[in-house]
Parts: sequence; C-alpha cells; structure tokens
Amino acid sequence: VRRATEALAAALGAEDCQAQSMPDASPTKWHLAHTTWFFETFVLAVHRRGYTALHPEHGYLYNSYYEAIGERVPRAERGRITRPSLDEVREYRAHVDRQLLDWLSGASAAELAAAAPVIETGLHHEQQHQELILTDVKHLLSLNPLKPVYRKPLAQARAAARDPGRRWISFPGGVVSIGQVPSAGFHFDNEAPRHERLLRPFRLASRLTTCREYLEFIADGGYATASLWLSDGWATVQARRWCAPLYWEEREGAWQQFTLAGLRPIDPDEPVTHVSYYEADAFARWAGARLAGEDEWECAAHGSPDGGNFVESGALHPLPAPDADGLQQMLGDTWEWTQSPYTPYPGYRPPAGALGEYNGKFMCNQLVLRGGSCATPASHIRASYRNFFYPDARWQFSGIRLAQDA
Amino acid sequence: VRRATEALAAALGAEDCQAQSMPDASPTKWHLAHTTWFFETFVLAVHRRGYTALHPEHGYLYNSYYEAIGERVPRAERGRITRPSLDEVREYRAHVDRQLLDWLSGASAAELAAAAPVIETGLHHEQQHQELILTDVKHLLSLNPLKPVYRKPLAQARAAARDPGRRWISFPGGVVSIGQVPSAGFHFDNEAPRHERLLRPFRLASRLTTCREYLEFIADGGYATASLWLSDGWATVQARRWCAPLYWEEREGAWQQFTLAGLRPIDPDEPVTHVSYYEADAFARWAGARLAGEDEWECAAHGSPDGGNFVESGALHPLPAPDADGLQQMLGDTWEWTQSPYTPYPGYRPPAGALGEYNGKFMCNQLVLRGGSCATPASHIRASYRNFFYPDARWQFSGIRLAQDA
Amino acid sequence: VRRATEALAAALGAEDCQAQSMPDASPTKWHLAHTTWFFETFVLAVHRRGYTALHPEHGYLYNSYYEAIGERVPRAERGRITRPSLDEVREYRAHVDRQLLDWLSGASAAELAAAAPVIETGLHHEQQHQELILTDVKHLLSLNPLKPVYRKPLAQARAAARDPGRRWISFPGGVVSIGQVPSAGFHFDNEAPRHERLLRPFRLASRLTTCREYLEFIADGGYATASLWLSDGWATVQARRWCAPLYWEEREGAWQQFTLAGLRPIDPDEPVTHVSYYEADAFARWAGARLAGEDEWECAAHGSPDGGNFVESGALHPLPAPDADGLQQMLGDTWEWTQSPYTPYPGYRPPAGALGEYNGKFMCNQLVLRGGSCATPASHIRASYRNFFYPDARWQFSGIRLAQDA
Amino acid sequence: VRRATEALAAALGAEDCQAQSMPDASPTKWHLAHTTWFFETFVLAVHRRGYTALHPEHGYLYNSYYEAIGERVPRAERGRITRPSLDEVREYRAHVDRQLLDWLSGASAAELAAAAPVIETGLHHEQQHQELILTDVKHLLSLNPLKPVYRKPLAQARAAARDPGRRWISFPGGVVSIGQVPSAGFHFDNEAPRHERLLRPFRLASRLTTCREYLEFIADGGYATASLWLSDGWATVQARRWCAPLYWEEREGAWQQFTLAGLRPIDPDEPVTHVSYYEADAFARWAGARLAGEDEWECAAHGSPDGGNFVESGALHPLPAPDADGLQQMLGDTWEWTQSPYTPYPGYRPPAGALGEYNGKFMCNQLVLRGGSCATPASHIRASYRNFFYPDARWQFSGIRLAQDA
Repeated sequence: VRRATEALAAALGAEDCQAQSMPDASPTKWHLAHTTWFFETFVLAVHRRGYTALHPEHGYLYNSYYEAIGERVPRAERGRITRPSLDEVREYRAHVDRQLLDWLSGASAAELAAAAPVIETGLHHEQQHQELILTDVKHLLSLNPLKPVYRKPLAQARAAARDPGRRWISFPGGVVSIGQVPSAGFHFDNEAPRHERLLRPFRLASRLTTCREYLEFIADGGYATASLWLSDGWATVQARRWCAPLYWEEREGAWQQFTLAGLRPIDPDEPVTHVSYYEADAFARWAGARLAGEDEWECAAHGSPDGGNFVESGALHPLPAPDADGLQQMLGDTWEWTQSPYTPYPGYRPPAGALGEYNGKFMCNQLVLRGGSCATPASHIRASYRNFFYPDARWQFSGIRLAQDA
Repeated sequence: VRRATEALAAALGAEDCQAQSMPDASPTKWHLAHTTWFFETFVLAVHRRGYTALHPEHGYLYNSYYEAIGERVPRAERGRITRPSLDEVREYRAHVDRQLLDWLSGASAAELAAAAPVIETGLHHEQQHQELILTDVKHLLSLNPLKPVYRKPLAQARAAARDPGRRWISFPGGVVSIGQVPSAGFHFDNEAPRHERLLRPFRLASRLTTCREYLEFIADGGYATASLWLSDGWATVQARRWCAPLYWEEREGAWQQFTLAGLRPIDPDEPVTHVSYYEADAFARWAGARLAGEDEWECAAHGSPDGGNFVESGALHPLPAPDADGLQQMLGDTWEWTQSPYTPYPGYRPPAGALGEYNGKFMCNQLVLRGGSCATPASHIRASYRNFFYPDARWQFSGIRLAQDA
Repeated sequence: VRRATEALAAALGAEDCQAQSMPDASPTKWHLAHTTWFFETFVLAVHRRGYTALHPEHGYLYNSYYEAIGERVPRAERGRITRPSLDEVREYRAHVDRQLLDWLSGASAAELAAAAPVIETGLHHEQQHQELILTDVKHLLSLNPLKPVYRKPLAQARAAARDPGRRWISFPGGVVSIGQVPSAGFHFDNEAPRHERLLRPFRLASRLTTCREYLEFIADGGYATASLWLSDGWATVQARRWCAPLYWEEREGAWQQFTLAGLRPIDPDEPVTHVSYYEADAFARWAGARLAGEDEWECAAHGSPDGGNFVESGALHPLPAPDADGLQQMLGDTWEWTQSPYTPYPGYRPPAGALGEYNGKFMCNQLVLRGGSCATPASHIRASYRNFFYPDARWQFSGIRLAQDA
Repeated sequence: VRRATEALAAALGAEDCQAQSMPDASPTKWHLAHTTWFFETFVLAVHRRGYTALHPEHGYLYNSYYEAIGERVPRAERGRITRPSLDEVREYRAHVDRQLLDWLSGASAAELAAAAPVIETGLHHEQQHQELILTDVKHLLSLNPLKPVYRKPLAQARAAARDPGRRWISFPGGVVSIGQVPSAGFHFDNEAPRHERLLRPFRLASRLTTCREYLEFIADGGYATASLWLSDGWATVQARRWCAPLYWEEREGAWQQFTLAGLRPIDPDEPVTHVSYYEADAFARWAGARLAGEDEWECAAHGSPDGGNFVESGALHPLPAPDADGLQQMLGDTWEWTQSPYTPYPGYRPPAGALGEYNGKFMCNQLVLRGGSCATPASHIRASYRNFFYPDARWQFSGIRLAQDA
C-alpha cells in the first residue's frame, strides 16, 4: 500500500505535488506526509517504546482534522507550505517505514495484536488518500490552460466497447440486514452495527448512466428546467452557472472532457462522471426514476459479480459496461450517489480516542455514495462501504445509477 | 384563520410590518399579502369565472418561491418594497376575502368540491405564516437596542410552575406505521404515503430539555469542547461565535433572554428554545443521549396527551412542563429537532401543478422537527406533521427532547 | 431649514421612511432623527443648562459616525430599527425645535455667540441630509418593480429646452487662490485654509455632458473597451456588469431612466447623471478630454453666472443647459466629478472636539465633486464647496464636465 | 539584470517557486517567466524578423495585465499552474536570452535604435520584479509555521549600529520643478512631464521612523485610538485586527519579526517597515506630524547623499541610520509613504501601444511611495521615481518619514 501511494506520485513533479487547487483538495505532498504522520502518530508514538517524532514540529503541518491532536494548518492553506520539500517528505516516508518495519520485526505477539487494528486502519486510510491524490491532481491539472496529461492510459485499458443498453433488475425488498458482518474482515466504524431494515420492492438499472443519456438530458434543457431540481440544487446551478458535468467543455459545438490523460471527446458509451448529487437527482427525475437508497444498493450489491474497473486497471476513467446479465458496474467505474443522507446506523458508537473523529462527526449534510470508482484500489472496496460527500461536490469520480419503486 | 392573521399584526406599526431583519425572515406586510395572493392565484384565478387579479403586477411582489408562477422579488429584498403600503395590503386582503365569500356563496357543489382541497391548503398555509409572523417579528425586534415589547403575555399564561424533572419513557419499537392515515383529515403531501418502519426499542425524555439543564451544558464548557460537536456544527460555532442560544445575553453575570414580551431573566424551569440542530445534537451527546428519529417521535406521540401550549394560550413562550405522568409537551411549547434528515417517504409523489413545489423540492440538507410550538395554532398541528429547517437555523421556537436506545 | 426637511418627507409614507435600500443610504426616518440629534447633542446638551436628552438611550440609534460620542447602530442596520416610529421621530423633532427656540429667546449675547458656529454647522449639516433624503429615497423607490413616483415635477420646471451644444471656455492658469475667503461667510473646515496654487492654462466645456453624448459613448462600445478605463474602473464595470448609468434600463430597444417622477424616456438634451467617477473618467478619455482639477474648477467657477437648477426649482432632475454665453451649469443640475483625490489643503487642521470628525477622517480614497445638484438647496452651495465620494458611487446626482489642457 | 534575477531564485526550491501566498503576490516561477515573456513579446516578436514564440500558448500564462495582448490567467490563480516546471521556465529564459543576444549582435544601428527604449524598459521592468520576488517570497515563507530562512544576511551587512536620533531638516518651498529631467537618463512615463509646483516651507525628519518610536505608538494605544486614524484606516484596523506591523508577533511578551533570515527580535534602532499607509498616517498624527507630499520629498531628495542600503548590500532588511548630517536614508532601506494620491502629472500622456498600460491606468485609489528599499537594485532608483500601492498594502518594505509644515 505504501509503495502504491508513491507510484501514484511518481508521474508528478515537485510543482505538481506542491499546488492546491481548491480548499477541498490537498497537495500530493501533503497526502504523502499526512498518511505517514498517521502511522507515526497513532502507531509508532503509541506502541514503539521511546519513539519520538522525526520532526515533532511537523505534526502541526500534517494533522488533517483531529481536534484531539491539537492545532493544525487550516485546510485551505496547505498549498502555501513549501517546506519541507517533496524530497524531504519522501525521506520522512522512508524513515517512518523503516521504523515501522524494525518495530514489527521485533514486536511481541501481544504488542502486534494491540497495534494491528490501527495499522490496518492506517493502510485503508492511505488507500483513501490514494484516490484523493488522483482526484485532487485531476482538478489541479484541469485548471491549467495547457490541459496537461497525468498519465496516458494503459493500452489494454481503453479497449473500445459499446454500451449494452439499460435494463431493470428487480428486487423483492422485505427485511434485510445492512452493515458489515463483524467477522467478515476490516470495515470502518460507520459500516456498523449490522442491523435490519424493512425495504419495499424496488428495481435498479443494470448499469451506470451513460454520457449518451446525460447528453439527452442536457439537450432537453435539463439544466434550465427548475421543476427538475431540488431547491438548493437549482440555486447552485444558477449561482455557479453549471450547464454540464465538471470537466466538460464545449469546443466548436462538440463536448470534450478533461481526463487524467488530457482533453478528449466525450465517449457516449461511457458512464457519466463528475456530477453532483443535485445533478444526479435532477437527471433521475427527468428520467422518471430516482436514486437508490443506500440500503437498497447494499442489498442488491451482495449478489452482484465481483471485479470491476478499479485503479489497478490503469484506465483512470470509467469504461462502458460489459454486455452481460445481471447488475454491472456495482463496484468500480464511478461512485454512485444514493438518496440517503449520511447518518449513523442505529446503535452506532464512534471508537474511543482520537480515531473516534474518523467518521462520526461528519454525519450531517452529506449524502452516501457507494461502490468505489476507477480511482479506488480494488482491495479497498466492499458492498457495505459508505463514502460521503456534500451534495454539490463534483471532483470525485461520482456517477448515477437509476432506481425505481417496483 | 384569516382574522387570526390580522390579529397578530394588530400590535405592529407600519414600520414594524415593513422591515426585514434577515433573508430568512420576511416583513409582516409581505406575509399578509403573500397569504392573500395564494388564495387569489390558486383559488379565485382558477375557479372563479372571469376573475382578474386586483393588481396583476403585484404577483411579482408576493410570489414566494413558485418557479412555475414566474419571476419574483428575491427573498432577501422583500423589505425594500415600501409600496403598496400596509393599508393598501389590508385593502387587498379585504377585497380577496369578499371575492372568495361571494363566490363560495354562489358556487355549485361540484365547484366547491373542486376548490375545497386548495382552499384547505391555503388555510393551513396561512397558519404556517402566522407562526412565521411571530418568529420573524421577534427576530426583528431583538435587533433594536431598545428591546421593544411585541405583546405582554396574558396574565394567566405565565402562571408560575416548577420543572417536575426528567424521566425516561420506554417504547418497544417493532414494525410501526408512519405517516398520516389518508382518511384522518387534512395533511400535507410530505406526510404521505403512510408506510411501515422497523424500529428498535428506544426511550424518550418525559419532557423538553430545560434552561437549567442547558445552563449546565454551558457551564461545563459545552460550547468550547470540539468533541461534542458535529464537524459542521463546530465550524458554525466558531465562525459565528455562538456561546448560548439565540436571544440569550449575559448582563452583569446573569443570563437574560429576549422574548416577545421584551428582555427578561432566564427561567431555569422553562424549556430551552432557539437552539440550532447543531446545539441540540451537541447537548444530547453531552447528556449521554441522542435526539429521536422522526419515526420514533411519531410512534410515541400517538399515545401522548392532547393539549399543549400553543399560540392561543397567549404565552408566546414555552412554559415549564406539567407535573404529570407520561410524555409531556409533545405538542406545543417548542418544535423538537429530530435526528432525521428531511427526505421523501417511500413512494412519495408531489402533487401536480405549481403546488407540487410546496414541499418536495426542499427535501435536501434540512432536518425534521416535530410537534409545533407556542407560536403554532392548535388546529394546525398533529402527530404526523413534518416541519423542516437547516441545521443552523435558530429563529424558530426550536427545542430539545432527549432520546436513547433502550 | 428644519421645515424644508419635513417638507421633503411629507410625500412619503411610514413604510418609505423606514426602509434602507443599501448600506450607503439611510432611511428617511433616520435622517429626520439624526439631524435633530445633532442639535440636541452639540447645542442643547452643551449650551442649555440642565438640558437632558428627551430619550437618552436613543443617542445610540442616531449617531452617524462620531467615534468620540460612543457606540452606535452599524450603518447598514439602520433600516432594521422600527421603533421609535415615524410619528415619534416627528415629535422628537418638534420637542428639540421648541427647546432650541426657547433657549434662543432667553440666551445672553455671550451664550449666543458661543453657540452660533455649531448651530450654523447644524443647519448646513441638515441641508446635506436634505439632499441625501432625495437620493436615498430615489434609490429605494427604484428597486420597486412598480417604479413608484416620489413627486411629479412642478409644471414650470420641465419646460422643454434644447441642448445649445458644447463650446470650450479657456482659462489662463497661473498662481490662483483656492479655498474660501475666511470673511466670506460660512464654510466647512475642508474648504480652508485658503492658499495658492500654480495652474497651467486649461479650458472647460461650457456645459455638462448630455445624455446624447453619453449615448454615443455607449453606442461606440465604451463599456466594452478596456483601454478607456482605469484599471479599478474596468474591474468594477466587469464585476457589476455596468453598461449604462445607474437607473437607466433598456426596454424594447429604447433607454428609459428612473427619476423621482417615475420611469420615463431619456431626454438626450439633458445632462447625464448618476455616473461613477470611473464612468466620468472613461467618457472623458473617449472624448479626447479629461476631468477638471478641483482647483481649475474653483478658479473658473468664481466668474460664472449665479443661479441654477437647485432643489427649489422642483425639477428634481437635471435640465438642459441655457443657451447663453460663458460657463453654464457650474452650480446646480449635477455634481461634477473632478480628477482630484480628496486630500487636506496645505495647513489644514480639523476642529477640536467631536466635530473634528466631520471631514478630515474621510480624506482618503475619495474624489472631489463640485457645484451642487438639482437636489441641493441653493443656499447650501458655493464655488469653494468640496463634496466627496468613492469612485464607484452612483446614487448621487453626479455628472460630467469635460476639461482639456489649453 | 537577467542574471541577478536568477541569483535571487537560486536559494529557492521548485516548491518555493511554485506557491502563491495571496492574490497580490505571484510565484517566483511566474516572475521568472513573465519578465522573459516581456522581452519575447515586446522585443523579439516585434523586432526580430521571423521570430515566433517558443511556446505561443504560454503567452496566456505569463501576461500580467495587458488587456491589449489578450486574455490571461487570473492573477489569483497563478499558483495553480504547475506546468511548465521551474526547469522548463529556466530553459525558456535561456532561450530568449540567446535569441536576444543573437539578434543584438547582428542588428543594424537603426534596428537597435528602434528597439533600445523597450529593451531598457524591459530591464527596469525586470528590476521591479526582482524586488517583488523578495517581498512575495517573504510573505510566502512567513506563512509557514516553521519560519524558514530565505538567506542568512551577509556578515558585514548586519554591523551593529545605534539610531542617531531624529532631527528636523528645513526646506524653504517656493516654485520647484518636479519630474525627471528628460535628458537625465531612463525614467518611466509616470515621472513626466517635468513641471512646476508651488510649495510652502516644510521640514522633514532626518531619518526614517524607528521601531523604538513605533513601539511607543503601540504602547500608547495607537491601534486602539480611533481619533488617530482615517475612517477607512480605522475600519481596516478593526476588520483585520491589526495591532502591529505585518510580520510582527508577540511571543512571551517580546516582539519578534519575521525577516528573510527567519524570525528574530525587533531591533529598536532599525527603521520600522511593512506598515500600511493607514498606519504611517496614524503614526504621523500621533507624533504631531504628517507625511510628506511627493513633491516635497522629491524636492528634498535632490540634495541628499547618494548611496544607501539596497539589495546589493545583502542585508535584505532596513538598517539603522548613519550618524551623519543632513537627510539620511532617502534612498534605500524602506519605501516612504507620501500623503500624495497617485495621479498623473499635468500634461501626462501614456505611451502608444500595449506599453501604454504600464502606469496610467493605475492612477486611482493608490498612494505614492518614494525612495526604494533594501530590496531595490541600486541602479533602479532615483529621486523622481514614483512607486504606488493601495493604502492597505503592507507586504512591501514600506516605512515612515515624518514631515511638518515649517
């Protein structure tokens, strides 16, 4: 996991790793340092006897939001911290990795058992930042009028494919269990406790919404029709003058989109991505459908095929759905906005200590997304995984799967 | 209902009815006109043959948010429209009332049946604005350094009472029906369809949280303890420098609060009010509890006693709970923040036409409140009634009832 | 003077006198009270033995900007103070007037001599607020989509006239004396000390710039040509999307303007008004000219004819220039932007005490305007009078006179 | 000159050269590229036959404010352009330098004569950006909690010295000539035309205001005394909570300041720097003095000694004044705020073409500073040189020299 993070940064120069394009995004250099600080602070400093931080004064720079750990550089100002340099941060990573490996090789079984949960959390935490490195760099590079390329896609990744069309898959509802089975491996605190819900019959679209479908919504005046939008969504569309997904631009009458491989024409067979919740919701209303509840989605996902277009494919962009039976693209390609506000599961308790700030305090004003994306590591995602963003966020690989009452 | 609105405005001068204290609030003059425009637009113009609006060009001034009806004065600028004058708006009200009564007296049974639903909606809509007149005027007068009085409370309303203390009332949960029974009288579209939910056992506090309890939270550093707050709540507390509920101010070491009867000392036995969702949530966490789900609340409310401190009591402020068995203050006194985001019920469909904008488009980013307040007309409230506000709103009579897992 | 203020407010209702349309403008009710507070605070409280303020707590409401006098309601929030009512403010005016007259009738010669300067300042101060009542009400009414009328112009005031055309009047420059002659009657502190300046030969346009000329500037793309504008002006034009003077609007291809008599077509023979400094400067550049220095203007004004279109004419709008020799419209019609930043004259000293805040502290970031307008009382203006506003201000009756190097 | 720019950047890493700390400041990388673009655009593209820009699409990135040259990256977003990299910008510099030298070595006398003025302007323009590199980097590094060092001062530069104390030097005034003598070498357009002014007798402080004096102002409550401040200055002090010059911070009761050599204690003998016009003006009022007019300053500077603490000294910070007769520190150490708004000299005409945007369009809302600073190249400054900034700007090496009427 640690090496994968560095591989993502390998294509970037010191300048690319320094800049911050907006308050929601962070510099790659900061991601590299923060994920390391996590291990230093929550593993080494706690579990390794006599360990002292390499540069204690840097904790202030690399803390993200842990109030319990103390003051920190305001999020919007991370791009102004030019020292330590990228090279120094790389040395910091190597130092902490060495210290961790040293300690792991000499730790007792009891020590290892005590540290294992937070090490595991640290690795999953680092995978989250791997995805953010890609989405934050994409946003940064998109602002450059030269439209630079992060990485050309691997040859095999972009094999041409045609959209097989949308079908509806029905589910009976009833009382279903939601949340991660405690024994089923790692999960974040927000996936627990597993509990029962009462669902009505519903159906889901067999694959993600395509650019072709979304272009029809645009052509039909979707962005100019108030009755399709939530009130807050309509206000947002007007204030920010949205008329297409993020990264789309019309040049000489044809829609182009900026990708991690640079600017290229829209492929109508691909899933639409970089839409906000407001756009996903308005599109669904236009299409005579709705978005799924997160419980419906999770219930359906348990029977869907494994595999998918994750970061390992090298495509770094969603791909057309396979032409196959059953639900496709539930995992990978794009995160799927659900209609579910991000709230605690019944009986939810945040962990004790600073890690208790990991999830619980964000359970307000955000919506749940499910399923991972083309920027998510394959080993990071699962059916019970809950991601969450504000309804106006568009810089993640977020897309649309339609749902309906059955 | 129409006369009750005018009675609320009777204590106000033309200046009081003109001013707008913030974008969320509206001038009383506007409330008087808008509720009349509702009847003129949705009843007279539709159902009365040959009716033309008294001042067609005023529709632009009095439309609130109906995109389908056309352009309108931006909400924040209502206080800048000085003409028509208050007297002219009163004439407008009288004119529309006369027209309505004339038409009602001559309409056929079929005509009446066609118009009845929208007339009923118009009356309930007007009751909503009655409550807003009180909360908006309270906010406006609170900004005046002279701390003027809207109305002295009726003598009997302020009978001294002591807080009987908090007990916990348990509920078994299970599959419960939520939403208004279709045959049970008027309800708004957002209370339907009635549907089943699966609840876990829970308990509710027997009465609203008191000022005494809230003062303990303040004294314990509640407003300065990050770990008690949702992330967005903590950011709000810091940005707006909140350190007490709205309308509270410390003068020479003692807490005072501004009421519709002017500034007076905090009564520790009274329910705390004018708190945001963030404050209600933080208080509950501090108290080792949580807020109720709206389904839990509704399930519990069906068995609770009738009556309560509504606008008709003349108190215009929440009162200490009665010393009695069972749940108290479920209706009246203060709206109760629930932990439920405001979302559509399964199978919800907004009505056709412009009135379809009444509720559905607001189902994002807001939280449900239940139970009505001391500013709500008694005939307006019911167990299934869903009110909703943004989590930072404080100018309504909003309060706190604690809940716990059983 | 006191009666003239009340006459201006006589055409307004309590609602009109209550509302505040923007932070730069104040409610008429506030103007009525503030000018009275000035006499109460600086005359009665200082000079009348035993006088105590009628409502001491109102001082907080009516102080404008005198830091030395203490706290005050923030300027932008004056429109939210609904009590005292307009009627109560009128009683306050009557009370203070009676008290002043009582005291004047019994005061000794020494007492009168001590109070005379501040009484005279108070009257000139009130005349300034008379002009502001008109410009502030004009701005307020302009926001009402009904475009209401403040007052129909007097019949004789709007006698048709044709623009006589622009001629250039030359002046030799040299060493000239600027500033009010100390013995020549009342003047504000900013008009002193009289001092000498060295001027180069220059010439002034014989009359104000007309709407016809300004329409040519618009038609020639003046608002879209960056090279005509100061950098800050160009940024302002783009940010606020200016494309014409304030109160102009294009309806069905024809320019209309809102006046105190309602909306009416542009008269091309009239002087253009409600332009910012940026627009005046850009227009002058487009016309191959510049604005005058305030010293040039004052030097020229001393020989120009008396009379002019002041508030007493009842036109309440600038009128076409007379067809006569020499400089026309130097006084009245519109204030004339000069190219002179508002700075202290050499040797300037503000008066001692709170009245020292009257002018000096504003001598930064503003530009001098000269000559008075159609909203200025005739007895208020003189050649040495210095008015000043920020370069983006447009709600005063501000216009353009061209100048050139000779 | 070109090499000096690169020497200033030599101490900086790619990260330091990438980041932009505020809209007023630019990344060093941008300064390096923009100054090169100036030569490419205004010299090579105009004068060298057949020259085409190395990367034509980069013009969009490097244009600063020339509307005539076309669109450009908004100023505040320069820090988000990570490519081209610093190395690529250095190659761009080398390429343009080679092209220039090639062309110069082969150009005819007529060609050279045609290009000489713009080459000379380009070199002076680059010197302006040399100073900005230092002030912008200082601001950037100051935001880093680690308080990093740009460069240690040269040993000899920081020789200890004591403030010799302030004396007053008198000048008789009269008719004086202001502006650069046309034959006296290079000057910017805003220093012309030379013209006569009438000055009254005045005196100037013999040296810049020291930190000791400024600490007295602070200790005397200067930042909390409204009557000392211009109205806009007082509003700024309160809104930004200023209580000392930029880069000053109180740690454990002692004032420290951030310098290009890191954080160190205030030396009371040094000139105070990084003050706004508002602070300079308030300090002068507190001291019973005023700031000089730019004409007074220029008149006095012509007789003052040569030399001074410029960028070549290596101090990169103002130094205590020499103990010598006459005016000291007129050139170098800190820019001196004058009380003169930045306006055109009588008869000023901007040059034709795009370079006409160099100065004229900024002649509004700014104040003139004179004399250069410890970050100014010695060959760049002269008595007639006019610098200008907004009154709230503090990140330049700006200081205070007192003046008085004689």
